[in-house]
Amino acid sequence: MTGWVTVAGLGPGAEAQVTPEVSLALAEATDVVGYFPYVARVAPRPGLVLHPSDNRVELDRAGLALDLAAAGRRVVIVSSGDPGVFAMASALFEAIDARGNPDATDIRILPGITAMLAAAARAGAPLGHDFCAINLSDNLKPLSEVERRVRHAALGGFAMAFYNPRSNSRPHQFGHVLDVLRETCEPARLILFARAVSTPDEALSTVTLAEAVPEMADMRTVVIVGNAATRRIGRWIYTPRSVPA
Amino acid sequence: MTGWVTVAGLGPGAEAQVTPEVSLALAEATDVVGYFPYVARVAPRPGLVLHPSDNRVELDRAGLALDLAAAGRRVVIVSSGDPGVFAMASALFEAIDARGNPDATDIRILPGITAMLAAAARAGAPLGHDFCAINLSDNLKPLSEVERRVRHAALGGFAMAFYNPRSNSRPHQFGHVLDVLRETCEPARLILFARAVSTPDEALSTVTLAEAVPEMADMRTVVIVGNAATRRIGRWIYTPRSVPA
Repeated sequence: MTGWVTVAGLGPGAEAQVTPEVSLALAEATDVVGYFPYVARVAPRPGLVLHPSDNRVELDRAGLALDLAAAGRRVVIVSSGDPGVFAMASALFEAIDARGNPDATDIRILPGITAMLAAAARAGAPLGHDFCAINLSDNLKPLSEVERRVRHAALGGFAMAFYNPRSNSRPHQFGHVLDVLRETCEPARLILFARAVSTPDEALSTVTLAEAVPEMADMRTVVIVGNAATRRIGRWIYTPRSVPA
Repeated sequence: MTGWVTVAGLGPGAEAQVTPEVSLALAEATDVVGYFPYVARVAPRPGLVLHPSDNRVELDRAGLALDLAAAGRRVVIVSSGDPGVFAMASALFEAIDARGNPDATDIRILPGITAMLAAAARAGAPLGHDFCAINLSDNLKPLSEVERRVRHAALGGFAMAFYNPRSNSRPHQFGHVLDVLRETCEPARLILFARAVSTPDEALSTVTLAEAVPEMADMRTVVIVGNAATRRIGRWIYTPRSVPA
């Protein structure tokens, strides 16, 4: 039996947003590896071994998947959203790079619906023009770099999507980012807080930058900042396709 | 009968990347509206009226969908990729905004796999850290604004995904963007040209900025520019998750 590793995006939560190719990979797998809340989304069945693990052990998890594949197992590493956006795909390639044998394993990456696009769709079209995706966590980069990127995104006229805006261990960081936005954007700038999109806990709220406070975000929130042209109409927000000359 | 308008993302091309909720919306539709190559991806069936239209008539198409829904029809506007990324969702809200009645129609936006994430997955994980999505077309914004955004993205250390990099009517623009990249990035910067991802015509090519020429892109290409840390290993490229302090 030939082993393989597939990194699969489960989308933000709803089964109806899981692509058929991801469902097929899960049906063919012998092993599922991932952060425990994502592994919990996979239906158990005879012959399928689940390997849930904790947060912040991405390289160990990738190494386990590569070892299992080398032993002939068919391994799916599950990510929430899209595996290439602040998720397990880069961690897997880091592990492969460290081992120095990039062609030793049959690897596939299967895209998924990433949180910012699921949130944008529920709220309207706030990312309808040029935009940036920024991970606000300072686990793997200094906060000064986060702030520098937010500043360039704002000065460049981009809409922005913030992943991991705030957690119990990083309660103050998002406040610093809001301060950077207040230096670079007008007070009426629209900000969407989208929590647990596509799940029963879904909650959406749009406020102005003047009204935004850090407590509006938590670990399950993606934050979308419009550009200067983003508009609110009825319950929707959208960013026009045009930039006037 | 109550009409509705759903804007649905068909993903980049493969049926296996169309989400179940999009397939269900198409099954419930009485009318499908969209740019003709996307409408051609919907299987005809008795009772389903197809309304293919040409490029650059997005507002007319949105107006048609709203009129059909007002007459009780169930309308799906199809977009390639994700409808919220340089596609029909913003055009629909522009049309609704112009009519001034945002709550008159039952609207849903269904996300899809957008081209940059499908391309990134096929190539590895080049968007594994902070990134920007930029539409290089100057149909709806001045080229100076495109260049300004690319410069901020490069100076901010973002990876970049370029949509609509080049067409027959805009053959020279992508060359100007490469010039901006040469001013702001090192010659060894990795660039992925991903054409017609997930279709039988798929072609991927990774080169350095020093090697890149405009002719490597066409209308069906999405271009991904790594950040300074993006690495090539075997046939893969990926961007590490960390930025050193």
